[in-house]
Amino acid sequence: MFSGAQISLYPMADDFVGVILGALGALDPYRDRLRIETDDISTLLVGPPEVLFPALRDLFVAAARSGKHCVLSAAISRGCPGEPDDPICRSEAFGGPVGPLGPRKEAAVAAVHGAVATGQPAAAQFSLYVMGSGDHMDEIYGCIDFLKQSGVYDRSKNFCTKLRGDTGAIFSALNEAFCRFGPGAGHVTLDVTVSANSPTAV
Amino acid sequence: MFSGAQISLYPMADDFVGVILGALGALDPYRDRLRIETDDISTLLVGPPEVLFPALRDLFVAAARSGKHCVLSAAISRGCPGEPDDPICRSEAFGGPVGPLGPRKEAAVAAVHGAVATGQPAAAQFSLYVMGSGDHMDEIYGCIDFLKQSGVYDRSKNFCTKLRGDTGAIFSALNEAFCRFGPGAGHVTLDVTVSANSPTAV
Repeated sequence: MFSGAQISLYPMADDFVGVILGALGALDPYRDRLRIETDDISTLLVGPPEVLFPALRDLFVAAARSGKHCVLSAAISRGCPGEPDDPICRSEAFGGPVGPLGPRKEAAVAAVHGAVATGQPAAAQFSLYVMGSGDHMDEIYGCIDFLKQSGVYDRSKNFCTKLRGDTGAIFSALNEAFCRFGPGAGHVTLDVTVSANSPTAV
Repeated sequence: MFSGAQISLYPMADDFVGVILGALGALDPYRDRLRIETDDISTLLVGPPEVLFPALRDLFVAAARSGKHCVLSAAISRGCPGEPDDPICRSEAFGGPVGPLGPRKEAAVAAVHGAVATGQPAAAQFSLYVMGSGDHMDEIYGCIDFLKQSGVYDRSKNFCTKLRGDTGAIFSALNEAFCRFGPGAGHVTLDVTVSANSPTAV
């Protein structure tokens, strides 16, 4: 199943190019397992979730350690019927039949509780979109239930859920939302914003 | 039908707060027709599309005229079953039965060709998500067909379509994508990025 993301990193600094270039080395350990293409708006990362989410986490942490207010924005997608499959995306993390919501929520909570801490605090918000099925709101509500028990839940907002905590736990929660909710072989997307060093953070 | 957006403005400048505060006046003509709430990650704008898209356009143009590299990111939504309706969202722009794709594409193209120019060039990319129906890809492909004839089509990318042109035509195209594709009363969202003054723009 094709999976990947269009991502952008926004350092709110005159030297935004320097902050971005300084952070890109964080992707090096993942480069052989991702297809990467960049233009003036975003960078495409094609690969399986178990590579994609750690790569995004490490890129974000590297940028945030500049001390500048930095935001990572990502459109993350799996199973889009319009995308050709790609062997680099092969993963055990999705594609199988999905069971009842209860055990999926428990597994997701356990994964986030076990996430390795990065020491970098962040705030985030995201929306989960489940296409092509009539019960998409059940999956979305199930995901929100999981987030409330994840340890990084901040609050529900219109159109999205806000998270706050260690960057490691936040990206683990995003990974779980992406892989465990919606049909196993279905078209699921996340619209993600992660922010560090905001002068208006509460 | 409930409609609105979570939006964020990212000026890549040490004085990002000044650029944002300097642009906010552009929202003044729309404030009585929008509900607005701000936190450290985004600003919620609740209102109908005929107010929302011009307000976003004017906010973006005001920020871009700072000359700094600025990005507007927005999660735009209508018809989410989890949101209570709000009288401020009442609109003629959606909610009725939808006809065949052909005339909808023609009407969308005509609207973008008639958009008032702002004189501010921009690049953009966005994804259209249609929830709760089995034919969502037909609507998405129909929207991409419209974009190819819109005059602001740049290219198709994985997970999104890229636009380039005058900011007025770009926001008109986003408005048309949002209102004319997907079920009239359905749950439809856009994941939008608009960029100006990028040093790497081609």
